Amino acid sequence: MKFICEKSKLQEVISTAQKAVTGKSTMTILEGILLIARNDELTLIGSDIDLSVETKIQANILEEGSIVVDSKLFGELIKKLPNSEVQVNTIENNSLEILCEKSKAVLKYMNSDEFPMLPKINENMLLTIPQKILKNMIKGTIFATAQDEIRPILTGVKFEIDNGKLNLVALDGLRLALRSEPVENDNTISAVIPGKTLSEVSKILEDSEENVNITFTPNHILFNLGNTKIISRLLEGEFINYKSIIPDEYNLKITLKRNEFYDCIERASLMAKEGNTNLVKLDIQDDVMIITSDSQLGKAREELNVIMQGDPLKIAFNARFVIDVLKIMDEEEIILELTSSVSPCIVRNKNKDNCTYLVLPVRVMGY
Amino acid sequence: MKFICEKSKLQEVISTAQKAVTGKSTMTILEGILLIARNDELTLIGSDIDLSVETKIQANILEEGSIVVDSKLFGELIKKLPNSEVQVNTIENNSLEILCEKSKAVLKYMNSDEFPMLPKINENMLLTIPQKILKNMIKGTIFATAQDEIRPILTGVKFEIDNGKLNLVALDGLRLALRSEPVENDNTISAVIPGKTLSEVSKILEDSEENVNITFTPNHILFNLGNTKIISRLLEGEFINYKSIIPDEYNLKITLKRNEFYDCIERASLMAKEGNTNLVKLDIQDDVMIITSDSQLGKAREELNVIMQGDPLKIAFNARFVIDVLKIMDEEEIILELTSSVSPCIVRNKNKDNCTYLVLPVRVMGY
Repeated sequence: MKFICEKSKLQEVISTAQKAVTGKSTMTILEGILLIARNDELTLIGSDIDLSVETKIQANILEEGSIVVDSKLFGELIKKLPNSEVQVNTIENNSLEILCEKSKAVLKYMNSDEFPMLPKINENMLLTIPQKILKNMIKGTIFATAQDEIRPILTGVKFEIDNGKLNLVALDGLRLALRSEPVENDNTISAVIPGKTLSEVSKILEDSEENVNITFTPNHILFNLGNTKIISRLLEGEFINYKSIIPDEYNLKITLKRNEFYDCIERASLMAKEGNTNLVKLDIQDDVMIITSDSQLGKAREELNVIMQGDPLKIAFNARFVIDVLKIMDEEEIILELTSSVSPCIVRNKNKDNCTYLVLPVRVMGY
Repeated sequence: MKFICEKSKLQEVISTAQKAVTGKSTMTILEGILLIARNDELTLIGSDIDLSVETKIQANILEEGSIVVDSKLFGELIKKLPNSEVQVNTIENNSLEILCEKSKAVLKYMNSDEFPMLPKINENMLLTIPQKILKNMIKGTIFATAQDEIRPILTGVKFEIDNGKLNLVALDGLRLALRSEPVENDNTISAVIPGKTLSEVSKILEDSEENVNITFTPNHILFNLGNTKIISRLLEGEFINYKSIIPDEYNLKITLKRNEFYDCIERASLMAKEGNTNLVKLDIQDDVMIITSDSQLGKAREELNVIMQGDPLKIAFNARFVIDVLKIMDEEEIILELTSSVSPCIVRNKNKDNCTYLVLPVRVMGY
């Protein structure tokens, strides 16, 4: 194998392929990146079985071939080279020679036959969506996945195509996050993607209008970004029927400014951190929301003007769950829908119908 | 106690005083900041005994007094308040009330009598130097202090006034860092300041031409920045006679570009990390320096054009020590002074005579 390409471009594709090299596997070969030089193209593949990333660049291929090289060492070496052309070629003793200006490095390589095959996927491009929008939808739901493995299916994010909409849903028993975007697709599809691999996917997606094409198979999801393909396995099992959890009705609707609410909850939570209860109490009446917290550390009281439609209500929350939601919402005006002090609170944007968040309240004696 | 002041100014002085609140002490009172409201001034003091920081701002003092409040909680609370006026006053039950717009918080405070007294220092302002220069001198030497406590004195940086120069020196047995600046002072003074407290001092010093006045006492050093005073205890014991370590003569002088040398050593060190030896070999002849490294990970070879005055030489180093020096030097052209493969290497700026670095070589069989 022998190829020549620009250092900066090589550095970029290494960095992309490395997203799948998590070091969690016990197989040494998976600490490596597979390099395939063929037909004027250099292809790099990183994989930890659950997640695989394949990415390619144009390169001057002087001799075709494929090898596996340690991801970390190869990545650091290329990064530290001067901005110039890099020549990479195999030499005797299973060694790889890297030449750039007056620098020369020699590394051991591994046999590409030992690298696991990627699942063969027949791309049907079921779904096309701008990268930026998908990135945002992932960011807006992934925080609500369960962190423990008690119900493994809840550590994932459900991708659902239903009635011409793509829905992403995550829930952990105490809160739920749902993001929706219209898509041109009439199928009904459902698949649950592990939160950990999805987090790497969102790092590869760019804040751009460029599309990503998505293909579903019974066991995998494929994201095709053009020069980069990401394949993740799916989680097995039945996801909770989340629609039955979201109430349709409410007794009180509150309109308020997201930033103001966020700042008040943040300050109140400072006094609520003792013993990890993180309890903040809301007392809503006469278009004013009073937020209080109280612990051995001290007390806080915050006052916020809101617009109320419905009956006064007292309700208490774990501040962290409210903060998590407010932090990733993007509209300035938001709506809370409440029914009673023991019923879920729904949070939505006021003007844009693209998200539904649900937070369970905390029952407080005499409140 | 009762005062009113701007949130942003209060946040700034809390952040300064917090530099001395390290949480390392077992005394609860030292997790607090002492607030003193007197004569239109609010003074804040943080201390961990070794290091104390006293800083003040103008404030509207409505009632004089002093209390101690938990540094972290008070700091976070003030930081999260809106940019507006803040009122702070004591209320019943040893509580402190903090009011800002519609926010109210109540914290417990501690009795100021329990806060340790700062050492009384009669300021004689022995030395005046721009903050920026001192900050740079600290940064340029502190990395060479010993990290273990085998010889406690070497965990400090020596401040020395000698022949109208301020010298800062640190050494750990394998390398030495010396920075010098001319000062208007004819005294001869020597004091060793703990590296840990000096690191906090350098965070408080600004990149500005504003002066810092320094006072030495037998046990303390005082840095006066105007509104902020920093007091550190000194290390006891005799510092090594560092001048005797720095050789006056050399057989080979090399002039080279710092950045190029740095990049080459960085790349070569990638292949030298195995077993922590970090060994890089230099072969200098015919105005070319060849840098090589070799381990089970692989091999590197770098070539660098240099200007030689003297005899060819082969010498080996721990790459990390060379990188540490090159990283904090600021001139582009530098000089290496070498005598033999087992003698110290001296590194200096080519044009500015403000620093001397010494790195011991590593003896390599047959090299």
